[in-house]
Amino acid sequence: MSTTIDVPESSNVVKGKEVLVAPARVGGWKKGIAIMDFILRLGAIAAALGAAASMGTSDQTLPFFTQFFQFEASYDSFSAFQFFVITMAIVGGYLVLSLPLSVVAIIRPHAAGPRLSLIILDTVFLTLATASSASAAAIVYLAHNGNQDTNWIAICNQFGDFCAQTSGAVVSSLVAVVIFVLLIVMSALALGRH
Amino acid sequence: MSTTIDVPESSNVVKGKEVLVAPARVGGWKKGIAIMDFILRLGAIAAALGAAASMGTSDQTLPFFTQFFQFEASYDSFSAFQFFVITMAIVGGYLVLSLPLSVVAIIRPHAAGPRLSLIILDTVFLTLATASSASAAAIVYLAHNGNQDTNWIAICNQFGDFCAQTSGAVVSSLVAVVIFVLLIVMSALALGRH
Repeated sequence: MSTTIDVPESSNVVKGKEVLVAPARVGGWKKGIAIMDFILRLGAIAAALGAAASMGTSDQTLPFFTQFFQFEASYDSFSAFQFFVITMAIVGGYLVLSLPLSVVAIIRPHAAGPRLSLIILDTVFLTLATASSASAAAIVYLAHNGNQDTNWIAICNQFGDFCAQTSGAVVSSLVAVVIFVLLIVMSALALGRH
Repeated sequence: MSTTIDVPESSNVVKGKEVLVAPARVGGWKKGIAIMDFILRLGAIAAALGAAASMGTSDQTLPFFTQFFQFEASYDSFSAFQFFVITMAIVGGYLVLSLPLSVVAIIRPHAAGPRLSLIILDTVFLTLATASSASAAAIVYLAHNGNQDTNWIAICNQFGDFCAQTSGAVVSSLVAVVIFVLLIVMSALALGRH
């Protein structure tokens, strides 16, 4: 919470205690951070929803089949990819709903309430986004490289388009994660410095 | 930064402006949060280092072999598990190094600097811990259930002890992630409320 204190200068000096006198326009950079927060949020919405849409539409049907492979690969095949689509949609929805709070932070750059709510909610959804992004990345890695020891075969030779699309979705989600970290750091700086 | 203001009551009334009079002992709960922060950090160190050690020592040699399986499974077999061991060790190391900052926050509960550093660093290492935890969880899930569509066979029937140990490591890392989220929320509350 910001304080605007209008006490006679003399009282500060006389008592000699710890007194914080905040200049009226110190919060200019806070408004700048709040505007940057809003813009970054728009970018994160695009990244999260783009990741969900890209993963959700990943689907490749092969014109042939072998002893080992089905005709089709889609995100349904992997629990981690289903989790990815659901959580990225949730994260995108949260980001859209957080825009009004971000606007409040622009209008009232000194209010701690909106920033505090944003920092706590952002932390929760950062964790969600990171978890889904990392688990999907682990599966994408396996799809590209396979695993010798367990005899899990790389499928990207067969399902090239599928792999490209899911890899793109993972990269897009990583962008959202990075933006989340930036948002939290910026909110913390705005909260901590008076 | 906290403000302790000792102005005559009359000056508040006379000016009628926005004046915040903070009681001298308002920071008691902040000290409580700082102590809780320290204790939770100890728990997170145990969880993170325990996860790294448990995963790092996972190694099972079978007394037989089949057409498909090697004799041995260890964390080396999976890139995600190697990443897990390395990042959990790094996170544990960071948490140990962050203890002095946490002690400073206990001694000076009103200082914003240590808390701000902690919240920013915690956010970065929360992301690291969550990513390694989630990617390892994705592999553990595959090891337990396999994947029909890609013909990836579940290995936990053969490597029961290996699976139990890696699953335990993932659960332990999830505990560390939850503690990180709590730490960040508590630091944000202590930063935001004066």
